[in-house]
Order: sequence, then C-alpha cells, then structure tokens
Amino acid sequence: MFDLNADLGEGFGRWSLTDDDALLSVVTSANVACGFHAGDPSVMRRVCDLAAERGVRIGAQVSYRDLAGFGRRAMDVPADELAAETAYQIGALRVFAEAAGAEVAYVKPHGALYNRTVHDDEQAAAVVAGVQLAGGSLPVLGLPGSRLLAAAEEAGLTGVPEAFADRAYTPQGTLVSRREANSVISDGDAVVRRAVAFAVKGAVEAVDGTTVEVAARSLCVHGDTPGAARIAARVR
Amino acid sequence: MFDLNADLGEGFGRWSLTDDDALLSVVTSANVACGFHAGDPSVMRRVCDLAAERGVRIGAQVSYRDLAGFGRRAMDVPADELAAETAYQIGALRVFAEAAGAEVAYVKPHGALYNRTVHDDEQAAAVVAGVQLAGGSLPVLGLPGSRLLAAAEEAGLTGVPEAFADRAYTPQGTLVSRREANSVISDGDAVVRRAVAFAVKGAVEAVDGTTVEVAARSLCVHGDTPGAARIAARVR
Amino acid sequence: MFDLNADLGEGFGRWSLTDDDALLSVVTSANVACGFHAGDPSVMRRVCDLAAERGVRIGAQVSYRDLAGFGRRAMDVPADELAAETAYQIGALRVFAEAAGAEVAYVKPHGALYNRTVHDDEQAAAVVAGVQLAGGSLPVLGLPGSRLLAAAEEAGLTGVPEAFADRAYTPQGTLVSRREANSVISDGDAVVRRAVAFAVKGAVEAVDGTTVEVAARSLCVHGDTPGAARIAARVR
Amino acid sequence: MFDLNADLGEGFGRWSLTDDDALLSVVTSANVACGFHAGDPSVMRRVCDLAAERGVRIGAQVSYRDLAGFGRRAMDVPADELAAETAYQIGALRVFAEAAGAEVAYVKPHGALYNRTVHDDEQAAAVVAGVQLAGGSLPVLGLPGSRLLAAAEEAGLTGVPEAFADRAYTPQGTLVSRREANSVISDGDAVVRRAVAFAVKGAVEAVDGTTVEVAARSLCVHGDTPGAARIAARVR
Repeated sequence: MFDLNADLGEGFGRWSLTDDDALLSVVTSANVACGFHAGDPSVMRRVCDLAAERGVRIGAQVSYRDLAGFGRRAMDVPADELAAETAYQIGALRVFAEAAGAEVAYVKPHGALYNRTVHDDEQAAAVVAGVQLAGGSLPVLGLPGSRLLAAAEEAGLTGVPEAFADRAYTPQGTLVSRREANSVISDGDAVVRRAVAFAVKGAVEAVDGTTVEVAARSLCVHGDTPGAARIAARVR
Repeated sequence: MFDLNADLGEGFGRWSLTDDDALLSVVTSANVACGFHAGDPSVMRRVCDLAAERGVRIGAQVSYRDLAGFGRRAMDVPADELAAETAYQIGALRVFAEAAGAEVAYVKPHGALYNRTVHDDEQAAAVVAGVQLAGGSLPVLGLPGSRLLAAAEEAGLTGVPEAFADRAYTPQGTLVSRREANSVISDGDAVVRRAVAFAVKGAVEAVDGTTVEVAARSLCVHGDTPGAARIAARVR
Repeated sequence: MFDLNADLGEGFGRWSLTDDDALLSVVTSANVACGFHAGDPSVMRRVCDLAAERGVRIGAQVSYRDLAGFGRRAMDVPADELAAETAYQIGALRVFAEAAGAEVAYVKPHGALYNRTVHDDEQAAAVVAGVQLAGGSLPVLGLPGSRLLAAAEEAGLTGVPEAFADRAYTPQGTLVSRREANSVISDGDAVVRRAVAFAVKGAVEAVDGTTVEVAARSLCVHGDTPGAARIAARVR
Repeated sequence: MFDLNADLGEGFGRWSLTDDDALLSVVTSANVACGFHAGDPSVMRRVCDLAAERGVRIGAQVSYRDLAGFGRRAMDVPADELAAETAYQIGALRVFAEAAGAEVAYVKPHGALYNRTVHDDEQAAAVVAGVQLAGGSLPVLGLPGSRLLAAAEEAGLTGVPEAFADRAYTPQGTLVSRREANSVISDGDAVVRRAVAFAVKGAVEAVDGTTVEVAARSLCVHGDTPGAARIAARVR
C-alpha cells in the first residue's frame, strides 16, 4: 500500500498546532516531533498512544535544537553533535512508542534540517550516523535525489523517497521553489488527482505540462493540505 | 560487592563540571545526566562510551527540566508530565548506553527531584510511573525511608537505598540537614572509615556518638568527596 | 477611569495563543509576556507596537523561567535569582515599549508566580526587589491582600489590587478556589454586571448572596472571558 | 587611551567559564553575555556590579539563541527576528548596567554571529537594526572591513574596529584562518609586542614578514591570551 505521512505532535506545553486526532485518521505514518523543535514528553506520549491504537506507523521527526525557530532556521551543527542529537531524539521517542506497544519505524528530518540535508553531505551523513547510533537500521524518509537518501543507502539503510501532492514539480522532478508563485497547488481536486498519479503511475504533471517520473514510496500531506482526507480515501 | 555511585556527565555544551574520567576510575555506577539539568547528547554519548569500556554501570540521573537552575529548584510538575519527562530522559540515555554495548541499569533522581521525592507521595509515584513507562523494570536509587523507594517497591520495582560517606547522620538514621554546621564530614580518613562501616557493618556512628544502622546497598560519592579514590580502593 | 487588564503576547515562535489584536481593542492595560513563560522578542515587539498605537498601557508580565510549563509550575527559585530574573524580563520588554514610543508602566507576575506571591513572603519580596532593580518605581498588580502587594507598599512602590469579573468571591473577599464547582462564572450578563459593580461600587455579590467589598483598581479579563467586549464598553 | 575588550560573564546557572574577576582587572571594556549563548540574569547582575565598581565599560555581547552550542553554530535567523533578539538582549543587560550606576556603552556580536556578520549583509544589517531598536546610538565592535561595521556606519552608528594580539594576520590585514597551523600566537612576549604595535603604530607584522596596517581602536584579549595582564599594563 502507498504510504501517507504527516507531521504530528507539534505542540509544546500550553501550545498546540497540529490536529493530531484528525491527521491520525488520514495517514499511515506519523512523523512525531521529538522535543527539539516541538513535542514535549506528554505530547509525544499521547500521540504515540493514539497512533498505536489506530495502527499508524510512528516515525521520529528529528530536528535542530531550536524551539524558538520551530526548527526552521538552518544551523551549522558539527557532525558529531548532530549525530548525537539525532540519536537522542530517536531514543526519547522510542520509549513512548514501545510503551504503546509499537516501535519507532523510521526517521524523517524536520524543517531546516530536511532542507539542508538535501544538499549538504556532512549533515546528511551526520543524520544517518545518528540513525545508526540509535540502532535497529531504521529507514530514512527524504526527498528523491537528496544527499540524505544517498547517505542512508551508502550506510546500508533504506532511503524512502517521498512526494508532495500539493507542490508543483519541475520537468526534472524537483520541487518548484516556494519562492515562486505557482509552487503550491491549492485546488483540492488537483491535489487528489496528483496524489493518485504518484501512487499509481509513479509520475506527475510538471509545471510545463510534461509528465515527469517521481519515484516516491510515500506521500507527505499536511494538516492544511486541501483534500487530505479524500487523498487518503482515494489512495487507499 | 558494595556499589559506589557518583553523578557524571554534568556538563552542557561549552561547559564542563564533573571530572568524568577520574570518577569513572573510582565508581561502579555512573549516574549520567540526561539533558534536563545538564548533559547534552554529545556528553551523554561520551560518558556512556567510557563507562561501558570500564565496566561501570550506567544509570539515568533524571531531573526536573531546569538547565538554568541545574535541577536544584523544586517544581510543582503535574504527575503525568513528570512521568513522561522521566521516561523521555531514560529513553534518550538508553540509546547511548546501548550504542556502547551496555544498558541503562537503574534510575536515580537528581537534585531537587531527589529531595522532593523523599517526602512527596505524588511526585515519587510519578517518577516510578515514568520508570515503568520506560520499561525494563529498572531499579530506583534513593534515600532509605524515602517515599521514592516505597513507591518503587509498591510498583514491584527494586528500591536501592544509598548512604553518604561524607554526611553526618542523626541517631534515627536520617541525614543531618546541610543547614547545620556539622552536616558534612571533610576529614578524608573519617570519610573512608565511614564508607567501610556502611559496606561492612551496615551501620555508622551518628552525631551523638551512638551507632545507627543504615541499610544501604550503594554509597554515593562526589567528585569532591575527600578520599573518594581511597574509599573505592578500601571498599573494593 | 477603571482599568481593564489582560494577558497578551503569549505566543512563542511558531505558536500563537492569545488573540492580541482583539484584546487590544478591549483592554486599557496589556500584560505582555517577556520570554520566560511565553513571548519571544518578535512577539514582544509586535504587541508593544500595537499597544502603543492604540494607547494601551504596557505592563511586564514576569514569570518563572518555564516555557515547557507555561509558567504554571511553582518553582523554589532563590530570592536573588528571582529578583534578577524579574529585572531581566522588565528590561527586555522596556526596549520594545520604548521603541514604540511608550514605556513599561507596571509589572504583574504570571501564573504560578502570581499564585505563589499571594502567600510566600520571600518570593513576593524578591519580585519587588526585581522591580526596584529595574528602576522607575513601577506599580505592581496583584491580588488584594496578597503578600506581593504588601511587599510593594513596604518598598515604597504602588500596589494595584485587581479583581476578576468571572470568578466567584467568598464573603471574606477572596477568590473561591478553582477546585470548587462554582468558582468560575460563565454567564456573560452576570460577568458584565459584576464588572460594573467592581468599577462603580467597589463591591460584588459573594457566593452566599452577601455583598462584599473588593477594593480593586483594575479588572482582569481573559480572551475567553464571556462578554469581555461588553465589559469594556460598559465599564468605559 | 587604547581600549582592551574581553568576553565576560559566560557562565550559566551552575556552570562558570570566564574568570570575570581577573579579567575585570585587565580590560577597559567588558563584553557581557546576555543570556542567549551564556549569562543568566544573576551572572549579568554580578558582572555589571563589578564592572561599574572598577570603571570598566559594559558592552552587550549579543548572540544567536543557542545555549547548547554556546552561540558558535551559525544560524539562518530571519532578519526581523535577529533584530528583535538583538534588542531584547541589549535591553535585558541595560537593566543591570543601570542598576549598577553605569550604562550599556556598546554592542559586540558573539561567536558565530560575529563571524557571520563579517560577510553576510542581511544579518549584519539585522544586528544594526536591533541596536537601533534598542535606542541610544550605541557603537558596534567588529572586525575591520566587516559588513557589520559598514552597516553600522551606513546607519549612522559608530563602527569600532578591533584587533587580536594573539592572532596572525595576512598581508591584506585579515585574520589567518584558525584552520591553519600558525593562526594563533602563543608566545607571550610576541603577543605583548604586537598589542603595543597595534596601539602605537596601528600596524602589525603579517605572516610573510611585511608590515600591515590594522586600523583598530580596540584590542580583544581572552582570559587565556598569553600575557593578558602584561598587555594591559604595557598598553596602558
């Protein structure tokens, strides 16, 4: 079955953000925040309990240590520190996944770390080193063609490429930058159609009208992705 | 063999505090800080590697979330949050212990949480609930007669009472308050003698000259405990 | 004119909480979070700009350092640290108030610090010492009869007692504990009527039907206080 | 008189780092940490009190918000956030400077922010915007030729170029990278000689033996700069 993943548990203390309950009815994989950009221990516990109850896979959404910036500010973290920080987050989440009778099944970097490891060899390798440090040969989710997935494969881990149903693609199969006007697709029907295309054909229509192959094995949806529930229904 | 435990890994980022290398030559159990009062992921990793190499047992030194106060400021943390925070810290440490080929073998609260759980039923139970949440039936170190050890035993865990070689005891077997002048013993010979007394006789001389039983199974030393190395040699 | 105060700027980074824009149309005094329980520098700046634009007075809502607990967990902070932390927060807010052409006009403790300084002499004195350290003889808002207001007056500062339109009062003029069923008044008309009673008569109906004097000079409303906008209109 | 500046107050809570007392006997300007990379409110207060007592000028050593990395990890902080964070730190320090009868007399970025604003126009402008937001037209310390000093001058502030007595210079007057073997000068006599050359001639011997002009108005020393005390004596 085609995988649908979403970011969850992104509250902290008094603050909430993601509609965890609704998203857990839609996705098959939950990227759970581990406390570095969001997600305090109580939130992590609750989300793991809910995910396990509904049979949703639990992934560690690892991040730079940056609550004030929600992990969206790229940081020059030395490789050994980044590896240790990655492992720390996975280990902390594992406690709540296992207490819920489940497990941490994969790792996906969040925000600026996700973007940085598309191109940055050293940080990509550091995240992978952190995953290995945490044991268990966890798969790593990332952008097709990213250094992160390459580093995962080189280390003998599984790199899982993901696609975005609500983002425009270039004819080369990369994402159109968010700085461009047409980068995000807001028409719910189009989003659903594209999601199905990813799942069924492994391809999508690029901005120039051509069809481009996108070898994705998971589809990332957001709480505010138009038609997220319909995507889930149709793709399933 | 009688157990010697000490707090280790209490640096954070640029700051260091405990002489981890020296202490690991002395103790048989290392209470490793888990990031809430001290101990960043890199420090935790290094201490676990060193401890495993030397065959020193690794324990999770769990704390209130209070870097600015080094975990020394009592906090009214609701029970469910405290349980989740305890489990989070154990899980994070476990990653580094296991990566080093070892395991987290016990839990000991730090600072204000240690002191609070001597008397506070709710917080004592919350720490124990956190230990259970983290799985593995870990033993809990604490003060003889503390609510913490009672709660651990009630939950089916092992409560490990500890003694302090450099602290004066009342005839009732409790610690003389640090606010009193004679509460800390600074004579190295006396400290070593008392350590041996705890280990061999399970008793120590109280402030009034009488002998009082202290049923301790571990002895806590600090980096600055006079004669720590000699204690280790003699007790062993 | 009778003063209406509310907590504002309680977002942090990606998270928002209070509807600052709406509240600034209602109140005459804004208790602005200063970064210790909520309120990052960008939020503080924006709220100060808005408040200054609308002629709303700016107050420093000082807190324990506890983002994870939103300042709602009482902490045993030593007096000199608490004084310095209080001054730090006031100074940080002052920059944004003055940049907006306004000033920090008063101080009000938040959450657990507010509750603790009702009864705790040492912490009440520490907050007042922090206010004095920050200079300018700022008035201090608090509960009538609290140690905080007493300490402020003893130090030569102005203590400003406040009332709560949506809380039930005992015949002695203290708040009915939130643990009791009838402690919060949810009927909007009743809340407005009580607000006017505080403002005009300096008295309110207690839970036993008697009338009790409450010498308040400010009224605290929350974003979710029923009828907050009508209170503002009527009281004005 | 030629100015000597040093980083001070870089402890946090239980941890200390800089020998503030010794440094305050040596320098004429104290770069005081403001809580974002180091420096809690109690440390800030104590350092300001000591500095004022000895007539040492107080400067705000502003940093990225990064306690775990001691402000040494470059961060992509958006300009408006960086400006607000800069102002926040200056305001917080000002309270303690003024309580001590002194003032915040200048601003100097710390660590990665210092290095980043050498070349990064946007962050340099953001720091300067933060200084302006904090009011008072404070001078800004930085590297000669840095974007930071240029941005300060463009904004009508005074940019104060500083030199390093224990660092090697290229014939172009820039610092030899720390990655190169000969970048740091550890011979105390040489350091003193170079410090005097900066102060008296505005020039120093470069790595190739030529003399290069370095138009510095302040000299940065570290607690571990060899001969720091002698530098102070000789330069004075």
